[in-house]
Amino acid sequence: MQRLAVGIDIGGTNTVFGLVDKNGSILIEDSIFTKRYQLFDVFIDELCNRINGLTNKLNCELIGIGVGAPNANYFDQCIQNAPNLPWKGKFELGKLLNQKINVPVFVTNDANASAMAEMMFGAAVGMKNFMVLTLGTGLGSGIVVNGELVYGHTGFAGEMGHMIVRPEGRHCGCGRLGCLETYVSATGIKRTVSKLFAKYCCVSDLRNIPFNNLSARRLAAAAYAGDQIALEAFEFTGKILGIALANVVALNNPEAIFLAGGLSRAGDLVLKPTQYHMEENLLSVFQGKTQLKISSVKGNSGVMGAAALVWKVVE
Amino acid sequence: MQRLAVGIDIGGTNTVFGLVDKNGSILIEDSIFTKRYQLFDVFIDELCNRINGLTNKLNCELIGIGVGAPNANYFDQCIQNAPNLPWKGKFELGKLLNQKINVPVFVTNDANASAMAEMMFGAAVGMKNFMVLTLGTGLGSGIVVNGELVYGHTGFAGEMGHMIVRPEGRHCGCGRLGCLETYVSATGIKRTVSKLFAKYCCVSDLRNIPFNNLSARRLAAAAYAGDQIALEAFEFTGKILGIALANVVALNNPEAIFLAGGLSRAGDLVLKPTQYHMEENLLSVFQGKTQLKISSVKGNSGVMGAAALVWKVVE
Repeated sequence: MQRLAVGIDIGGTNTVFGLVDKNGSILIEDSIFTKRYQLFDVFIDELCNRINGLTNKLNCELIGIGVGAPNANYFDQCIQNAPNLPWKGKFELGKLLNQKINVPVFVTNDANASAMAEMMFGAAVGMKNFMVLTLGTGLGSGIVVNGELVYGHTGFAGEMGHMIVRPEGRHCGCGRLGCLETYVSATGIKRTVSKLFAKYCCVSDLRNIPFNNLSARRLAAAAYAGDQIALEAFEFTGKILGIALANVVALNNPEAIFLAGGLSRAGDLVLKPTQYHMEENLLSVFQGKTQLKISSVKGNSGVMGAAALVWKVVE
Repeated sequence: MQRLAVGIDIGGTNTVFGLVDKNGSILIEDSIFTKRYQLFDVFIDELCNRINGLTNKLNCELIGIGVGAPNANYFDQCIQNAPNLPWKGKFELGKLLNQKINVPVFVTNDANASAMAEMMFGAAVGMKNFMVLTLGTGLGSGIVVNGELVYGHTGFAGEMGHMIVRPEGRHCGCGRLGCLETYVSATGIKRTVSKLFAKYCCVSDLRNIPFNNLSARRLAAAAYAGDQIALEAFEFTGKILGIALANVVALNNPEAIFLAGGLSRAGDLVLKPTQYHMEENLLSVFQGKTQLKISSVKGNSGVMGAAALVWKVVE
């Protein structure tokens, strides 16, 4: 009987899950609409029913369940006060899943799951020291040191998005000022574009789009079409990120840094200035020693990474 | 026969070495004057002769040699271009020692050795995630994650002193601007005092001391006597360090941070403002969760830490 792991990617809109083999292939997947479930228990009931449905279809042996979710903690297997999820408070995600489906459960946050996907199924196979940055609404990071994910003392390591890079800088959702993710994220670059509207008087089609309708994809399209504001926004984003990465490299000396998430799909627009400013700011002993790449994981990296949590342990 | 490890602490002025038991007690020690040896081979010859002398006195079984040295690399066991050592170029420290004394040799930089001493023999026993900062001429750091020292991909992890904290800031010996150690180190606080001489017109006995004769010890004595410039210098030093530590905590989420080295002997003068500004700048999930302490290791932590490299592996 084929041995498979369940990977669950809980997002603010959808929760996607699938059965994943040890090569990272998703053999079957399904999803439910997260926002529909105002009660966490009802959400878990439906999720487990659907997973059992998938398992029955494939007649396989389940070896474990991995979950990636915002604000999820590896140690206590809970999610707590995730701003984009419908449930307010602390919920025993891992314990409930284990009660319903009696296999080992592993829980981590979504950025750590992306790092696991890269390590088990992507370009980081064989690497012992690397990190993955997820550039979406915010900036998440999953850090691998000595071949293991860094959870830290209380399970919240990897909050690179909340490194303060400009002490009196932009207001952040966390209540502080100048966090990296207020500059470097799909939201951050929109804020930068908005600032550049104020600074320059040049013509830009982007000025016809309301702030709330701007997106990393639209900005990338504008930049590729030569829009000066979009181009400068990517350059500025890369500068802030490159300087921050130079500091992180000084601490952890990774072999590679992978960019994932919506903003990373802009490709060279974000990669090139980041690479330039990182190298410009690196201590000499690190120059030319750190690969900067777009994540190699194709398909649903959230589901793959969650399943990788299981395969990492049982393999 | 008692089993003992050799710990060697190579410094710019003296090289201190001793035989250390598994509890961290230095049973016998000796030293040679580093600067006297212009040739590295001659230095190693004399060092090994002296070590053999100690070993013969105690009639013990040597289980290995650990070395802490500036710019030393764990992976290739070499020291390379250390600004404060008399030998320019790259030297195969580990290989030469192993040729002369046929036991396993472990080499690391001095800040990592301090972290090992704290983990094996100090207040970090049992801790899996912590870091040690050595505040001396520069700022070194040894980072422990998941119970292991972080060496990184090329063996140079832990260069926290070269995180850029003020992009257009003070000139650093590394050729860049605004590195943390230009503010937070025994040298950094002297530079701060010098700046405060320019800013204020207040009376201070420190104005009678040439820059080159200022020291962390003298500044601490002045601050304890109420000198306003010294007090503000410690406050400023703690502010810069506290903000930097808040960023490092966001990445690695350590249980504790230990301050060691000359400047740390100022005690609360450096600890209190650092603690205050670290907490002020921490993401809420980390507040009140990170201990900040003066290193607990008494005696020659360089020798103990170097020997700990051996005991960590053979135990």
